[in-house]
Amino acid sequence: MNYIFWCDILGTIVFAISGVLLASKKEMDPIGALVLGVITAIGGGTIRDIILNNGPIFWITDSTDLWVAIITSLFTMLIIRYCSIDMYPKWLLPILDAIGLAVFVGIGVNKAAACDVNGLIMICMGVLTGVGGGILRDVLARDIPMVFRTDIYATACLIGGAVHVTCYLCLGLALETANLLGIIVTLTIRLFAIYLHLKLPTVHTKK
Amino acid sequence: MNYIFWCDILGTIVFAISGVLLASKKEMDPIGALVLGVITAIGGGTIRDIILNNGPIFWITDSTDLWVAIITSLFTMLIIRYCSIDMYPKWLLPILDAIGLAVFVGIGVNKAAACDVNGLIMICMGVLTGVGGGILRDVLARDIPMVFRTDIYATACLIGGAVHVTCYLCLGLALETANLLGIIVTLTIRLFAIYLHLKLPTVHTKK
Amino acid sequence: MNYIFWCDILGTIVFAISGVLLASKKEMDPIGALVLGVITAIGGGTIRDIILNNGPIFWITDSTDLWVAIITSLFTMLIIRYCSIDMYPKWLLPILDAIGLAVFVGIGVNKAAACDVNGLIMICMGVLTGVGGGILRDVLARDIPMVFRTDIYATACLIGGAVHVTCYLCLGLALETANLLGIIVTLTIRLFAIYLHLKLPTVHTKK
Repeated sequence: MNYIFWCDILGTIVFAISGVLLASKKEMDPIGALVLGVITAIGGGTIRDIILNNGPIFWITDSTDLWVAIITSLFTMLIIRYCSIDMYPKWLLPILDAIGLAVFVGIGVNKAAACDVNGLIMICMGVLTGVGGGILRDVLARDIPMVFRTDIYATACLIGGAVHVTCYLCLGLALETANLLGIIVTLTIRLFAIYLHLKLPTVHTKK
Repeated sequence: MNYIFWCDILGTIVFAISGVLLASKKEMDPIGALVLGVITAIGGGTIRDIILNNGPIFWITDSTDLWVAIITSLFTMLIIRYCSIDMYPKWLLPILDAIGLAVFVGIGVNKAAACDVNGLIMICMGVLTGVGGGILRDVLARDIPMVFRTDIYATACLIGGAVHVTCYLCLGLALETANLLGIIVTLTIRLFAIYLHLKLPTVHTKK
Repeated sequence: MNYIFWCDILGTIVFAISGVLLASKKEMDPIGALVLGVITAIGGGTIRDIILNNGPIFWITDSTDLWVAIITSLFTMLIIRYCSIDMYPKWLLPILDAIGLAVFVGIGVNKAAACDVNGLIMICMGVLTGVGGGILRDVLARDIPMVFRTDIYATACLIGGAVHVTCYLCLGLALETANLLGIIVTLTIRLFAIYLHLKLPTVHTKK
């Protein structure tokens, strides 16, 4: 499906940018920023493919995503060096990130569905593909992992992935249709969370 | 063997609880706590299966442990929210953790023994299964990795695993018997270390 | 080739030492230091083999490197405890580290070349083998990952790996010759960077 291909490219671009932006905040050197951008963009899918163990990692057979991540990282460094960041509206990156996240969850579920695993594993692989790159980015840059904080982020992935899997396994929809529904749900929840500054309450113990 | 199955379940439960407790200390949201609980419970075995590369990861073929980890994490969040933690004696969690640890080391050695590797690798896989989940938990929550600190923790795994492997490979005992001996040794060392507050001296350089 | 074997042993020794030295700085216990030394020495190659997924991890089939890492870690702890560290010239460790790094990059590229992947993947696997162990070491010890900081470290790997791959794929040199050239380039850049205290400028945003 063509829209999946382009959304995947978009997701890769956005995640690579987020890696480079964090690297610049942490005052890394250009190669460190390149490595961090690439790991953020392809890290989630890499962990998914290692765990599913169904053929080679996706960027080894087809290096398109790897090239996209590399070129995006280099471009981002140039742009943030020579153009003022204030030129871009503040809402642009979170919204692109939400689109990338939604698509990555869908791709993860689809990949797992092709491996003949049960529904729970399919949801787990979707969430992992969505949040894995960001977790690696934050751990490597010693930042507080955003995914674990109070933000409807992993939650959106979880609900979107569950909708995707339920439509496919229980309601008998075609995988393409289920995929599209899951993406829309993840995206909607995430955009609402951004717009309304929604947060889940933190887990705490009774005093 | 039945007792291995139940000890494995017990170990999974205890490790999931420890993940959620750390998540609540770090003020994560419920989904973050769920992810951390699950990763703590099944992380060690996952790394072991990835490195041994002998068939699919254990929770993909049989999702029992994954379900146990998920349900335990959810329950733990409810319990710590509505029941005062002071109700439980302080020694309960460390002792359950010691049991889980001892069993996980034994399972790791057994899994490696089934892969036709040498004794050193068998010990390494035992230690990795025991401490891997806790290392992932502490790295992801940005806590000081407990395993690397001065506590007879990895040490207990190492000695227990070595006893297990020696009994099996050198003394020719049945794998079940060797397993049981290894578990008893790991558990005993760990319980003594908890009870007597034993610590190894830290590595330091001559001034 | 024999010199590759001995350089590999040398690299393993140096990386294990660097892990134990960091462990002693962080006041870990001996087993923690052992684990950190071993992970630093064999971590990069392990991640490479997991991603390439071409047969078992290198230290499972041939445990020489694993033994070398274990024995080196134990020896290092003894030496730093009983001999004053001032006895060794300060430049010794960085230079040994540079040799190990250069060889590890070469080994990574060679391993990837044997897996029939494209040139970009070969370079990535070389860099990953070189810097992977150090990244794991720094993340586990909660230190600022040296690789991402302003130091010609990953940069040297990247250029050396690119020379290696270019000579092999584009110029048609034998893999052994290309390997040797790549090693020389990585080593030269790294030694110059150490000697002249070269650093890349950090990535920063226009104010």
